[in-house]
Parts: sequence; C-alpha cells; structure tokens
Amino acid sequence: MKSPLRIGIAGLGTVGAGVIRIIQNNDDLIARRAGRPVVITAVSARSRRKDRGVDLSAYDWEDDPVALARREDVDVLVELIGGEDGPAKAAVAAALEAGKDVVTANKAMLAIHGNELAALAETAGRALRFEAAVAGGIPVIKTLSEALAGNRIERVMGVMNGTCNYILTRMESEGRSYDEVFAEAKALGYLEADPRLDVGGIDAGHKLALLAAIAFGTRVDFPSVVLEGIERVSITDIELARDLGYRIKLLGVARMTGRGLEQRMQPCLVPADSPIGRVEGATNIVMIEGDAVGPIVLEGAGAGEGPTASAVVGDIIDIARGLRLPVFGQPAHTLEAAPPARVATPAPYYLRLLLEDRPGALAKVAQALGEAGVSINRMRQYRHDTPAAPVLIVTHRAAEEAIHQAVAAIREVDVNLDEPVALRIEEI
Amino acid sequence: MKSPLRIGIAGLGTVGAGVIRIIQNNDDLIARRAGRPVVITAVSARSRRKDRGVDLSAYDWEDDPVALARREDVDVLVELIGGEDGPAKAAVAAALEAGKDVVTANKAMLAIHGNELAALAETAGRALRFEAAVAGGIPVIKTLSEALAGNRIERVMGVMNGTCNYILTRMESEGRSYDEVFAEAKALGYLEADPRLDVGGIDAGHKLALLAAIAFGTRVDFPSVVLEGIERVSITDIELARDLGYRIKLLGVARMTGRGLEQRMQPCLVPADSPIGRVEGATNIVMIEGDAVGPIVLEGAGAGEGPTASAVVGDIIDIARGLRLPVFGQPAHTLEAAPPARVATPAPYYLRLLLEDRPGALAKVAQALGEAGVSINRMRQYRHDTPAAPVLIVTHRAAEEAIHQAVAAIREVDVNLDEPVALRIEEI
Repeated sequence: MKSPLRIGIAGLGTVGAGVIRIIQNNDDLIARRAGRPVVITAVSARSRRKDRGVDLSAYDWEDDPVALARREDVDVLVELIGGEDGPAKAAVAAALEAGKDVVTANKAMLAIHGNELAALAETAGRALRFEAAVAGGIPVIKTLSEALAGNRIERVMGVMNGTCNYILTRMESEGRSYDEVFAEAKALGYLEADPRLDVGGIDAGHKLALLAAIAFGTRVDFPSVVLEGIERVSITDIELARDLGYRIKLLGVARMTGRGLEQRMQPCLVPADSPIGRVEGATNIVMIEGDAVGPIVLEGAGAGEGPTASAVVGDIIDIARGLRLPVFGQPAHTLEAAPPARVATPAPYYLRLLLEDRPGALAKVAQALGEAGVSINRMRQYRHDTPAAPVLIVTHRAAEEAIHQAVAAIREVDVNLDEPVALRIEEI
Repeated sequence: MKSPLRIGIAGLGTVGAGVIRIIQNNDDLIARRAGRPVVITAVSARSRRKDRGVDLSAYDWEDDPVALARREDVDVLVELIGGEDGPAKAAVAAALEAGKDVVTANKAMLAIHGNELAALAETAGRALRFEAAVAGGIPVIKTLSEALAGNRIERVMGVMNGTCNYILTRMESEGRSYDEVFAEAKALGYLEADPRLDVGGIDAGHKLALLAAIAFGTRVDFPSVVLEGIERVSITDIELARDLGYRIKLLGVARMTGRGLEQRMQPCLVPADSPIGRVEGATNIVMIEGDAVGPIVLEGAGAGEGPTASAVVGDIIDIARGLRLPVFGQPAHTLEAAPPARVATPAPYYLRLLLEDRPGALAKVAQALGEAGVSINRMRQYRHDTPAAPVLIVTHRAAEEAIHQAVAAIREVDVNLDEPVALRIEEI
C-alpha cells in the first residue's frame, strides 16, 4: 500500500466535524478503496476550546489556516471556513502555491474567484475540487464533469437551496404565508446569518454559476446570473398553481443559447408530477440534459453534516487515487467568456390578474395580450363574492419581453384592480 | 495537448453505432475535456456490409475482435459484442493481456467472470470499466465507487430493467394482463432474444451483483442472487396494491447483513409516492444509502443508443484523463467472499387470499398467521357478488420463513379457495 495521504482541515463547523467523523469511522474502507490510508495531520479553526463532538487530540492545531495550508506534513488542504474572501481564499491560494491539492465546499468563493483559483491550481498542477459546494452529497459535479463528459449539455436545472424549498413546501402544506414560515425557519436556525443568501437566491445562484461553467465550458460568471428570490411568492400563487397542476420552486436553469449563456435563478412553475415538481422540504434535485444521455435526475439531501462531508471525503479519495482534473472540467484558459443572454428563452407564463367584474373586462385583457403577441393556452376565472374577479391565465410559449409588454399594458387597463403577477413556467 | 487516445470498437450494434456517433459529433468538446483527442482507429463486427447509419470509412476493419484487441494502434478496447463468454470475453482478456484498457457494457460477462477479469486487469495494471453495464446513462458505478467512496453503504436498490418496468406500468395503466402486454412488448422488439433475460430478472440480477460487489467490497456473486421474474405478477395484484398505496416493481435490493450478503431481484411492493414507486416505463432508478450521505437517488434512461453510449464515452474519457481505479472500487484480491444470506431481512408482506364467505373464515386465517408469528397491520375484505371473498392483508414486519409458514398453513385451511399470493413490501 502506498504512503498515507495527509489532510489538513481548516474550519471545524458542522461539515468539518463530519469529515473528521467519516475519516475516523470509515478509515478501513477508505484505505481499501483509496489504495492508501487517509490521515488527518492538523486542523485549524477560530476557537480551540469549543466541543465539536469529535476527538481532535491526535491532530496538530494551527491558529492560522494559511500556516496550516503550508505545513510540510499536509498534502491536501480541506477548506471549510466559508466566505468568499478572507482566510478561506488566503488559505486556498497558499495551499495551491505550496503545491498542495485543495478540497473545498465553498461555493461563494468559487462563484466569485473561481476563474482565478482554477488558473492558480492548474499552474501549480494541483487539484481544486468542490463536489460539496453544490447540492451536498449528490454527485452533481462529478456527473457533469466526468460521467457525462461525452455529452453536449443542453440544459442544467435544479432546486439547490434546501431552505427555500423547505419554506415553499411548508407554505403549501400548511396554507401559511411566506412571512410566517420564514419567521419559523429563522427561529429554527435554518437560515444563513444573512438570510438573503438563502431566500434571495444568492447561494443557489452561486451553485448554478459553477454548474454552468462545467456544463458549457464557460468562465464562471456569477454576476450575470438573473437572481430573483422567493420573498414575493404568495400562498395564493402556490395554491392556484397547484390547482393548475404546477408547483412553484426556486429553480435554477442554465442553458447555452444563440443569444449567449442563460443563467436564471428564480421562482418558476414546474409540472407538479415531474421529478422537480415533486421535491419536498430540504431535498435538492438536479436535472441534466445531454445530447446523448437525455435527461438524468440526481436527488438527495443538499446540506447537513453527513451529506456534505460525504462529498468532501469523496473528493479526498479521488485525490488519494491520483485523479486530477481541470477544475471546471477543461483547462481554465479554454473556458470561454460567453456573453450573458439578455432575454430568457421563450416559455409559457402563469399570469394572475384581479379584474373588475363587468362585461368586457376579459376582452380588454385578451386584447392587451394579443397586441403583445402573447396567446392564451388556458384561462380560469374563479368564483368570487366580491366585485373583483380573480383570473388565471397560462400562456403559450412567449418571449419574456412580450410578457413584460403585456403586463405593462394590463396595468393600464381600467378594469385591472391589482398588480398583475407573472411567473415563468419551465418546461420539463 | 497530449497524444490521441486510440480506440478499437468491437461490436457495432445500436450502442456501438452510438459511441461512434458521439465521438464523431462531439470530438471537439471531448478533446477539450479529456485533454487529448479521442480517435477511433479500428472496428470489428460480424457483418462488414450492414448499414449502421454511421460512416466507418475512416476506420480499419477487423473480422476478429481478438485481433482488434491486440492491434498496436489500439490503446482502449471498447467491447460491445455482448454475451458472457465467446468472442466478448476472449477479446477483453486479449486486450488486458496485451496491456490495453477496456471499456465494456457487458453485464452478463462481468456478472459471471468479473472476479477473474478484475484480477487480470489489475495484474496488467489496466482499467476495466463498465458504467454502461448498469442502468445505461445513469452514473451508478461512478457514484458508488467514487463519489460515495467515503461511505459505508447500507443498501443499494433499484429498478434496473426497463423492459420489465415498461410491462408492469403498462399493465397498470391499461388494466391488461401480463400475457397481453408481454406479447405486445415482444412484437415491438423490446425483449431480448431470450426473454427470460428480461422478464426472468436475470439481466437485472447481473446488474445487482455488480453493484453489490462495489457497495460491500465483496466478490461478484451472481449465482447467489435470489431471482424471481415478473411472469407471475397479475393485474389483480397490481390494482389491489395500488389501492393500498403501493406499486409493484421488479426491485433489486442488496444489503450486507449479520447473516451474510443479501441480493434479491424480485417483484416487490414499494410505496407509490416514493421515488422508486413513481418510476414509469423504461426509466431506471437506483437508490443508494450510505452511512454519511443518507439516501440518494439517480434516475434516467436505462437503455437505448444514446444513454448507453454516453456511459461508454464517459469511461473512455476517464481513461484518457488517466483515471485508473480497481475494477470494483478496491483491489480484486481484497474483495471478500461473503456468504449469501439464506433468509431475507424481515419486511412487511402483502397477502392476497380468496376465502369462502362464511362465518369464522377470517378467524381461521388470523389464527394461521398468529401461529406463524405474523401480525396483521391492515386488512381489507373486498365487495364481492360471489361466495368467494377476496381478502388483502398487509402484515407487520415479518421473517420470510414466518410468511412461508403462514402461507403453508393458510393453504390447508378449509375456507381457503385459491393459492395465496405473498409479495414482499420493501420499506423505503
């Protein structure tokens, strides 16, 4: 058996403790599978005294993660500090410059500095791996960059923020408002310190930008991700969408189009009986469509100690086995700087209107839609005891611009009583 | 860029043509991702003249796949001939002995000769990869042997024969008998030349044996797979199971138990609203449970030109990138010869009985169950206009032996009018 692979772990939060637990508990099978033992030599975190439920006594301690990264007896830095800059990035850069491989779960850092760090890793001839950064224990990065490497990828999409999906499915199952369920999730500690990272779609947007880079061979371009959070999703729309056979998800969609790279993270309707539509609670799901493989679906826990640590250890074992791929599946300098698509691929839309209940009201709306070039697939007017009639419309596939134009026109129609709601329906 | 990886393809059926199509169409992105071009130098098949819809003019032709395997200008043999022995195995062995890597989609060959071929590959220091052999384009082998390598695997299960699932879901959706749907599937060319490979569960059993070896670090042991086909699944049971919230699937389950390795491929009831329960038509699904990752689910097309060829090309690209793992995820000589579990892990069972409709009939059945130590969870007696009353029972978790004993006792009860049906309910 070959010499042990020596690990230094920077950051001992939930995931760090989980990685230590796996390496301690499963050392025998890891050694058999990796062809060599995987051992932890040193660790680093902010507080040395905190009880993390794992025995750290066998490991050296470093206060400074950069010092950890440079240790002679560390072959692989495992970066679990988090944060897009600061000590996380400093430690990763130091490790690569010192000729060490790196495994990280840090989606924010890679979404912002991924191109730079990938170039650094490749110059150093070392691996920089990040399976744990996207969808926890589900092997999305490996599937996209290795298993499906023969495919021209057509679309990648998924539900990749468990907290948002928890909030949306709980709103639906309990018929409660966003504000109520948000407050509850916050009290339960499900949200990031800055909740906009979750409910604003930023965290999920980071993940989408990483997947898009691998899928389409493009430079990581998080600033171009169209981001829309779930804050404005109402229980009314959740219930009416369900009534039409859809569910509302914070859905990430990336595709390469003739107009450039499209990356969107926004609340969308998806068919309730599709794999994505059925995803409940904190589960993550990713669907990848390739020209040869067709659609494949990966589903599982997207966060939490065990699943995320499982992905980190999987990356470590790959390195122990000698696998060293370009960070985003092809050499960093070959990643294209694709222009962002300015408008979305045409799709059907869900429109919810509140109209004055008098003759000709619908005709005015239908005219506004028609003039914008939007045609109606289905329409329902709901029973009401008030003079205001709720109207739902599912359009045929329409350009995003046309929908904006139609909504602007409906706003001006005299029978319109409330701000129209327009949500994209992603076809699956 | 490094020198091209040179491929020889033996077997030009659907999958072979698909591999050629991918390599021809996606050569640019494959070269970028693999870090070197992947080129086909020679091919081999039974008939040189047959039109396969792909241009073969640039490739040398070999009549003999063994000669192809030994060619100087072939680095990787892609074996797509099929069959557990004969030219497929001869070519694979010849390639490994000549120091070439091998990619194959041949589950039968690996299920029967996997241990021997793995030893041969490892002695030669070459890769023998087979992602395409299990569940088509879904990266089950890669997920199990790489992404989840840090996990102690607790259970692997799945629906891995698309034809069987097609037959079962079509029986359900159309309310037709097994014989009718089987005949239709046969006429449509969906079945293997020997249909027992599909409907007898043999093909799916081959796949399960391969997954079990990787999951549990055991020698491939296909002869110990408990095999039961779908021939005896009746539309009555499909409909009644559905009524109870279950669907019937040809389900493969492998787990390591205190009593040895359990490998079962048999019709089971699974919850209708579980990912496995929802799988329709020819789709394959595999669920893997690891101690760290929890359950993860992979789903997609399990067969067909594109998906299977996608998996073959993924393996080729791994080899082009220099990835060489032990065939079953750890060195062949470390795979344990686990004794097969003689009895199944306890589970709830579905029992369907036909009883004479007279006072005390149910009591007699309940007594037979009680004496066997089987307790009843739910029971339904259905409306009937005849003197024969259909009775459904869902038991609490029970030992397989106890169910056999109960069924034997019920057979002898004077009110029993038909052979009792007992089906395992796999808990998900």
